[in-house]
Amino acid sequence: MIKRPVLLIDEKKCRSNINQMARKAAGKKLTLRPHFKTHQSLEIGRWFKEAGVDRITVSSVTMAEYFSGEWDDITIAFPVNILEIDEINLLAERISLNLLIESAETALFLKDNIDHDIGIFIKIDVGYNRTGIVPDNTDAIESILKVLQSADKLKFRGFLSHAGHTYNCRSRSEIIEISNRSVSIMDELKDRYRREYPELITSLGDTPSCSVADDFGTTDEIRPGNYVFYDLTQHQISSAGIGDISVAMACPVVAVHEERNEIVIYGGGVHFSKESMTDDEYGVIYGRAVAPVHDGWTDLIPGMYLKKLSQEHGIVHLPDSEIANYKPGDIILILPVHSCMTGNLMKSYQTFDGRIIDRL
Amino acid sequence: MIKRPVLLIDEKKCRSNINQMARKAAGKKLTLRPHFKTHQSLEIGRWFKEAGVDRITVSSVTMAEYFSGEWDDITIAFPVNILEIDEINLLAERISLNLLIESAETALFLKDNIDHDIGIFIKIDVGYNRTGIVPDNTDAIESILKVLQSADKLKFRGFLSHAGHTYNCRSRSEIIEISNRSVSIMDELKDRYRREYPELITSLGDTPSCSVADDFGTTDEIRPGNYVFYDLTQHQISSAGIGDISVAMACPVVAVHEERNEIVIYGGGVHFSKESMTDDEYGVIYGRAVAPVHDGWTDLIPGMYLKKLSQEHGIVHLPDSEIANYKPGDIILILPVHSCMTGNLMKSYQTFDGRIIDRL
Repeated sequence: MIKRPVLLIDEKKCRSNINQMARKAAGKKLTLRPHFKTHQSLEIGRWFKEAGVDRITVSSVTMAEYFSGEWDDITIAFPVNILEIDEINLLAERISLNLLIESAETALFLKDNIDHDIGIFIKIDVGYNRTGIVPDNTDAIESILKVLQSADKLKFRGFLSHAGHTYNCRSRSEIIEISNRSVSIMDELKDRYRREYPELITSLGDTPSCSVADDFGTTDEIRPGNYVFYDLTQHQISSAGIGDISVAMACPVVAVHEERNEIVIYGGGVHFSKESMTDDEYGVIYGRAVAPVHDGWTDLIPGMYLKKLSQEHGIVHLPDSEIANYKPGDIILILPVHSCMTGNLMKSYQTFDGRIIDRL
Repeated sequence: MIKRPVLLIDEKKCRSNINQMARKAAGKKLTLRPHFKTHQSLEIGRWFKEAGVDRITVSSVTMAEYFSGEWDDITIAFPVNILEIDEINLLAERISLNLLIESAETALFLKDNIDHDIGIFIKIDVGYNRTGIVPDNTDAIESILKVLQSADKLKFRGFLSHAGHTYNCRSRSEIIEISNRSVSIMDELKDRYRREYPELITSLGDTPSCSVADDFGTTDEIRPGNYVFYDLTQHQISSAGIGDISVAMACPVVAVHEERNEIVIYGGGVHFSKESMTDDEYGVIYGRAVAPVHDGWTDLIPGMYLKKLSQEHGIVHLPDSEIANYKPGDIILILPVHSCMTGNLMKSYQTFDGRIIDRL
């Protein structure tokens, strides 16, 4: 019985998302190295193994430590935090580890401080402008390559990018445009350096591109993560249908304010996160309501959305037609705006048969 | 040594905040029942005990359970979640417990299901419009009182409000205006019902009012919480100075992008929360940088702020004059926008001498 906010997982939908991306990657001869920052769960990780996945991406040394008991090939897709060099050395002793760098300075630090072979990707900024080297800054790229050539434990693997600006898209064609641009940037880089480094690979990230794009050029590897759950943001971007979203928050109703079409739920910023989105019709929202059905939930309930969050409270707006259906003690299901952030806060998932799936 | 994002606590400032509110309450003959949802730490709770506090407020049954080993008088300032009735009964057996209700329906449920004496506050909506009964809806108030009269275990304690709309204020005078209005609403309610209930008390919440207001009318109890740490939001509201903020996130620098005046830090939405504020000068920001000094930190560094957050990454904007001062491996200190949300994510605090303070 659900008494407190719980993050429900629809295992069937989740496995279907996992299998679909694995099939797509196989069909396009792409290596799939899924990003595990979304689910951060050893058990859900095993569902990927069953789909044939044998290497993963994470975004922190802590996550790499957590998964290293069951996965022996991990890329930490985050600029190296040199303060964690001891932890990195311990990992590199046990597993095949790839790191990301974007400066010769960090490469030099690793050269001097790494005790075991590690793979190095150079992070390329394909337009998101968060991290990485802009592709035409070949001086910066070559200054790193020069350090790597002199460091026998640092094995240059190739170029890696994350087109996070697909999150601003609102249609499949916009996603495809960004994806094509990233692919052509990475293809050019490969062309330029592959005589010298015939083994170099290119690796692309982001769930929107990987879900929607069809043409990956000469890309070798993809690293989508969010697709394991999807969420309202992915739906807004056009990279997923509502029916693909595999997690929903179950929250107790604690008060009904019929006069203002509102319900108060036990479920706030410490459960959902404060991640919001701007809905064309409803403005800033924090989630959308669905109704429970046998082993699952319905499509979105029109006009019913999470409009405000405090620390523990959520305020759900309901249309007139719905307000009479709810009373204190009922459970409302809400699809999250950003499943990575909600999962991080909830610390576990619950299946429809009440099983708890732990995570980091 | 700090290697990963850590929430530093300045124990001296924190104790000073605790002591100052205790002195203010004592001076005005107000009972202080501080809200512990901000720090959620048994150890920090003991600092309140040393300042003479003997009763507390929390916002969930889970928090009440956590604190009930050291505190025997707890108000759960959240509409009763009737699904947790078993946990409520277990608590009420051991400690003096107060609950909030805002409907006769919930009062009836408690009447039928409570095994031990509990105190009941009726939640009054003084203008925040989140929860509670609007003060002129005396029918709703009296329908609850009627149920309470027939339920010998439900002890009516009085009226409770939370003027959360002070968070929209931008000056002390605006806070005082809202506070005075809340006080006068609660004073009137007390007047109306005190012949029948001579023992009834009124209880007001919110850190801005409690920090700034001077006149509390006939209010009996105050329940501020955030003041233990304060944060940039409280500073923007005008309820605290920057020098009163007692927590700061320490984050490793992982990349420097001099060409766009940006530093990438290890410290993202899973550390800070995605709580933002709109700064007059810088637009939407997620934190402000300060510089470390012996046993503390400086005032705000002009022009240096957290401008963007991903899951694990933060992007700090720096002025030209600062950019040369930072390199990968350095630690940057950031004052949080909302210390309650940041504390919830970080799960512990670290003192300047490296001691870890645990929390729920």
